[in-house]
Amino acid sequence: MKRIAERERIPEDKLKRRVKNGSVVIVRNSERDIEPLAIGEGTRVKVNANIGTSTDTSDIDNELEKARVAVEAGTHTLMDLSIGNNIDRVRREIIKKTEIPLGTVPIYQAFIEKKVDMDPDSILNVIEKHCKDGVDFLTLHCGITRRIVERVSERLIPITSRGGSFIAAWIIKNERENPLYTEFDRILEIVKEYDVVISLGDALRPAGIHDASDWCQFQELLNMGRLTRRAREAGVPIIIEGPGHVPLNQIEMNVKLEKRLCDNAPFYVLGPLVTDIALGYDHISGAIGGALAAMHGADFLCYVTPSEHLGLPTVDDVRVGVIASKIAAHAADIVRLGDTKRDDELSKARKELDWDRIFKLCIDGRVRAEHKDLVGKKACTMCGRYCALKILEDYLKR
Amino acid sequence: MKRIAERERIPEDKLKRRVKNGSVVIVRNSERDIEPLAIGEGTRVKVNANIGTSTDTSDIDNELEKARVAVEAGTHTLMDLSIGNNIDRVRREIIKKTEIPLGTVPIYQAFIEKKVDMDPDSILNVIEKHCKDGVDFLTLHCGITRRIVERVSERLIPITSRGGSFIAAWIIKNERENPLYTEFDRILEIVKEYDVVISLGDALRPAGIHDASDWCQFQELLNMGRLTRRAREAGVPIIIEGPGHVPLNQIEMNVKLEKRLCDNAPFYVLGPLVTDIALGYDHISGAIGGALAAMHGADFLCYVTPSEHLGLPTVDDVRVGVIASKIAAHAADIVRLGDTKRDDELSKARKELDWDRIFKLCIDGRVRAEHKDLVGKKACTMCGRYCALKILEDYLKR
Repeated sequence: MKRIAERERIPEDKLKRRVKNGSVVIVRNSERDIEPLAIGEGTRVKVNANIGTSTDTSDIDNELEKARVAVEAGTHTLMDLSIGNNIDRVRREIIKKTEIPLGTVPIYQAFIEKKVDMDPDSILNVIEKHCKDGVDFLTLHCGITRRIVERVSERLIPITSRGGSFIAAWIIKNERENPLYTEFDRILEIVKEYDVVISLGDALRPAGIHDASDWCQFQELLNMGRLTRRAREAGVPIIIEGPGHVPLNQIEMNVKLEKRLCDNAPFYVLGPLVTDIALGYDHISGAIGGALAAMHGADFLCYVTPSEHLGLPTVDDVRVGVIASKIAAHAADIVRLGDTKRDDELSKARKELDWDRIFKLCIDGRVRAEHKDLVGKKACTMCGRYCALKILEDYLKR
Repeated sequence: MKRIAERERIPEDKLKRRVKNGSVVIVRNSERDIEPLAIGEGTRVKVNANIGTSTDTSDIDNELEKARVAVEAGTHTLMDLSIGNNIDRVRREIIKKTEIPLGTVPIYQAFIEKKVDMDPDSILNVIEKHCKDGVDFLTLHCGITRRIVERVSERLIPITSRGGSFIAAWIIKNERENPLYTEFDRILEIVKEYDVVISLGDALRPAGIHDASDWCQFQELLNMGRLTRRAREAGVPIIIEGPGHVPLNQIEMNVKLEKRLCDNAPFYVLGPLVTDIALGYDHISGAIGGALAAMHGADFLCYVTPSEHLGLPTVDDVRVGVIASKIAAHAADIVRLGDTKRDDELSKARKELDWDRIFKLCIDGRVRAEHKDLVGKKACTMCGRYCALKILEDYLKR
């Protein structure tokens, strides 16, 4: 706890209080030998990168390369969303080859193995297997209920969450309540044994700005708030997942509502994307929404890559996605924590046209490689010999 | 005026009232045969792309190609910031080969031709030449005064504005007041003859978040407010240019201050960039700041390309820069104007997995070319056969 407090630059007693009241969660499976990660109030905004095989693209080595690149680009956590190849093997390989917290979505595997014939026990077995393997946090869509599924057709796009669609399909087919909802207490028992954090998945996150902040979304959030209380009573830390596609002027409200209804549980947002039309550039749309959400209190940003809505990301998409989210997270840290040291040092280096130092301080070390001809130069090709910084320096010196 | 009102979907009388009170400006030189463009209150947020030669890179054809690509990507205006090659020729070629409003910064040419020996008359001559050539709006750094220049050394980076640094150098060398400030009335006379809009340049825009919202910046803004009134009395429309590097939590204040001090003149922001460390990705940092600024009332976004702070943009940088700004502008239009039609249509197409239509509606037509294998398919490689949209559709239908 002391080490985490130092890293986050928070007094240790304050951090402990926040962990106790649930506004900060510490992510690390007790079976795993990695640095624990704090997410939540007063800590630096964290970034997650999703990797994992699909049914169409299922090369494990490629996913491991994505993990490596995501870590290199500065992601704080990874999520393995594999649905293709040998799901157990992919997960175990990622755990073996990385040293940052890993999240999974057990319902994927449970549904893929048994489809709508899955039963509560088979789901719990998958959850337990993931915990045993060392997964640090689990996305569980416990908040979607039959009452909500009955109304999803009112939306422009009913459900875009993969886990949410699996559960909704199961609910419709079996005419029964969501097993992740009915078996919540048994789930709490399992995860508690491994110090695993539950990330309550937002099955009803809007898939387009048309459906943002609607009845389905907030009904699920209301359910999540009640589940959060039950989890805390059982001593299980909770993260709340959030949207999704949200217009700019609804982002602050969404964050404040989550904090209010879920007793300040850390908020983990996917984007949010501020328009639906930015295909190919959704990392930019997501960085806009993420920065705004984090400024207003969101604690954890799930990256969005340029290939969102188009396909499984490539290794380069992963890198760009992480960097876009890191920019959003850092922009928010500047105003949340007054964390301006690196910016100020870089500005100072810019004034001195000290390219070597500029490249050391900037967000992507690879920028140096592409612009190494600048090192030692006293200007860039933008202004050439009419560099504003240089001209002024010359005259101010006289 | 009627055509503009229709295009902007504003009642014609409302538009006329706003043009009269200066909260909307119509950009088009009377010598030019192009569609006039409205910028300001209640109109769609506009995007500008900077092109132009540098002393190091001065191929006219390359700059014309950038102009073409910027227009193709949807920029509303261009600015020619040339400081290399034959400046007159570059400007005239761009005017000849494009059909959208063009802005220039006459002080560049005035300073480059005579350096600190330039005098008020030589500056006015350049301004008049640009007006005669058909330039539609001029950036003029009229608000920077001796009193401010005396204090710029207090900043981490005194001045990053190229035009600002030229004027500051002139002020220091000649120990005289800024000629663009002292000769403001003569400037108004010249531009009025050609229906040219003045964009009051922000010589003191902060070059790093450390200097954001400081004495220098707001002293200049105060000066701009007074100049705006004088210009309006003379019947000359004014745009106000704004920062620069600004932390997330100062953006709303900056916009509101500009609207208050400059009697609701359209606000034209460069970015703002929400962190200094995003070199190589400043289009993302700028899109975050631009979306937030536009949501709060900024009317006109100057693009920032990935090569900002690193060099003159390439053709591809220009394209990406325009698209990033268009995303920010559109995200703001969604909440300013309720402009959700295209988003909703795209969401509907997504629900139907109608890729052909998705590609027609998305922000960059080129995305289709890179993903044309999706057309006709009922899923993408992200989820493969476990597509959330498809699974739910199947079960909801039963």
